[in-house]
Amino acid sequence: MTDSFTLAVDAMGGDDAPLMVVQGLEIAAERHPTARFLLIGDETELTALLGSHKRARAACTIRHAPDIIGNDMKTAAAVRSRKASMRLAVDAVASGEASGLVSAGNTGALLALAKIVIKSLPGIDRPAMCAISPSARGDMVMLDLGANVQCDVRNLVEFAVMGDVFARTVLGLTAPTIGLLNVGSEDVKGDDTLRDAAEVLRASHIAPQFHGFVEGHDIAAGTVDVVVTDGFTGNVALKTGEGALKLIGDFLKQIFGGGIAGKIAYLLVRPGMDRLREWLDPRRYNGAVMVGLNGVVVKSHGGTDAQGFAHAVDVAMDMVTHRFNDRIREDLARIALDKHETGSKAVTDAGDSPRGISDGPHLATA
Amino acid sequence: MTDSFTLAVDAMGGDDAPLMVVQGLEIAAERHPTARFLLIGDETELTALLGSHKRARAACTIRHAPDIIGNDMKTAAAVRSRKASMRLAVDAVASGEASGLVSAGNTGALLALAKIVIKSLPGIDRPAMCAISPSARGDMVMLDLGANVQCDVRNLVEFAVMGDVFARTVLGLTAPTIGLLNVGSEDVKGDDTLRDAAEVLRASHIAPQFHGFVEGHDIAAGTVDVVVTDGFTGNVALKTGEGALKLIGDFLKQIFGGGIAGKIAYLLVRPGMDRLREWLDPRRYNGAVMVGLNGVVVKSHGGTDAQGFAHAVDVAMDMVTHRFNDRIREDLARIALDKHETGSKAVTDAGDSPRGISDGPHLATA
Repeated sequence: MTDSFTLAVDAMGGDDAPLMVVQGLEIAAERHPTARFLLIGDETELTALLGSHKRARAACTIRHAPDIIGNDMKTAAAVRSRKASMRLAVDAVASGEASGLVSAGNTGALLALAKIVIKSLPGIDRPAMCAISPSARGDMVMLDLGANVQCDVRNLVEFAVMGDVFARTVLGLTAPTIGLLNVGSEDVKGDDTLRDAAEVLRASHIAPQFHGFVEGHDIAAGTVDVVVTDGFTGNVALKTGEGALKLIGDFLKQIFGGGIAGKIAYLLVRPGMDRLREWLDPRRYNGAVMVGLNGVVVKSHGGTDAQGFAHAVDVAMDMVTHRFNDRIREDLARIALDKHETGSKAVTDAGDSPRGISDGPHLATA
Repeated sequence: MTDSFTLAVDAMGGDDAPLMVVQGLEIAAERHPTARFLLIGDETELTALLGSHKRARAACTIRHAPDIIGNDMKTAAAVRSRKASMRLAVDAVASGEASGLVSAGNTGALLALAKIVIKSLPGIDRPAMCAISPSARGDMVMLDLGANVQCDVRNLVEFAVMGDVFARTVLGLTAPTIGLLNVGSEDVKGDDTLRDAAEVLRASHIAPQFHGFVEGHDIAAGTVDVVVTDGFTGNVALKTGEGALKLIGDFLKQIFGGGIAGKIAYLLVRPGMDRLREWLDPRRYNGAVMVGLNGVVVKSHGGTDAQGFAHAVDVAMDMVTHRFNDRIREDLARIALDKHETGSKAVTDAGDSPRGISDGPHLATA
């Protein structure tokens, strides 16, 4: 497989941009030697930075953008800012000049711009935000994480289709299991939207992979590979889980940081603790993907470092090289078909292009 | 303060009932020496068990109930089961014979029976489920945890009022801070229901305590003492947080259980690890309370042991002795008043009856 694609990169988004972005591209350029990056931002600053980052310099073309969409900028204002680095990155994807983009900037602005300029994939009602999280049984995928506060049956079904393709494309799973997040696993729980969505999925090509309803504790348990939910619930669940992990992390720091006994204990269990830390490393899960758009759009966390940004680039490259959007189009066509069929077909095209395992450490537990 | 109240106890609910329940009452009877328990279940079995539990025997009156509402029983069937132990406990509260009840049985059945038989407090549209959770800044309260899948502005405002009284009554806080769970802390986030609820709270007597919107990570961080949300989101958030904590707990067990180095390390940091374990001990947080009913209804976890059941009794006793429902009635009256006032008054009646700190270890970090 070759990485001969161009990714647009918003050089000015993120707390430590543009230095962090250029450092991230220095790492990414080594991992994806044939990739090209359209680096968009302040030309003078970027030229200076590329001077000291040889690999990134060889892989990048600079495009000047005089403006920046700040983190506090309201979405309406951001959408009007036509010379901002994020906007020019979105434009590059919309025009087909780039296959995808990565930005660590303002999430709301990126989502709005992507929806308006890049537009939804034909057949998709609402794009969604999707990300990888750790679980007891390996990495899992959850969506929507905040793009759509309210969702109808069609939205949830489309999220399931897109989550399935994401898990196959980026996690390399052959037949990912899929669950609908609910307040109980019995079929009687939840509201009509959830019940109807479950019914549609049971009648679709995804049926063999559809596990039914899952609950909050199933996310960390890894009961399914793909958790489907509305953007409000998904956003709360994601942040609640992260908050709980941070709580324990802080407690453990206190325990092991407290005096000589703690420090000796840490040395004794260091391999295990290092594994735990690496496993939970937020940089490993950096890159919330906006799925359902006419192009690949990856949002890096604003507070990430170069390693995290490079992972976000990995995710974008995975999606581009594994024809993420083509597969969604194919699968959506099958859902429409299935509505008129009585049976359901197993996924048969999943095995032919699993994601390569070698090009990103974020796959270690997949 | 005297505990001269009668609590109805469903002796047959819970995985290890009725033994676990009687053992729990043996502990509770010591903590609340003047309390009376109406112990409802199989008379023969209970008489035999009380024979070997002296303190419980002295505090209990047995009432025979020939039937049991099983965990798998559908709510509709449970509601028709008029001779079940849970039903007779609910009847005892409805008739005024008992001030409250504790059951470790079927949650859906208990909620339905309580709403139908005990009924809502005057002025409360929808009762809610409420529970205490650990956070980085001490124990906090969240509601609704699943009683109401969909909520309107009035429901959320009532939850805030009830959560405030709960935090004052059971956690002993003077002026608990309150947050509305949302997908962003900016005022523009979320849907109309949340925005409108925030507006009503800002114009109410609770305004000085109202923190505005909080996000998922604020739950574990303890940003506020009371997190208010709809029952769907609250249920998912609670279980997601628990799942994340369990994930780390299992990982730590592996690290410290793995060989001699792990065991030595554990001995070195044991005081800290014991503190962590005690702090996260689910028994300490046992007792989801159904607030907004014409009586105190506490649901113990079905899988709890005697210690956990005794904590659930503690919570019920706290609510009864501190006139939980009277306070809600008073505060609801103030909300109605406040709608016609421009200013807002601080809570002034909070200091006079904080919860006693000595009668239950579940308050240790409050």
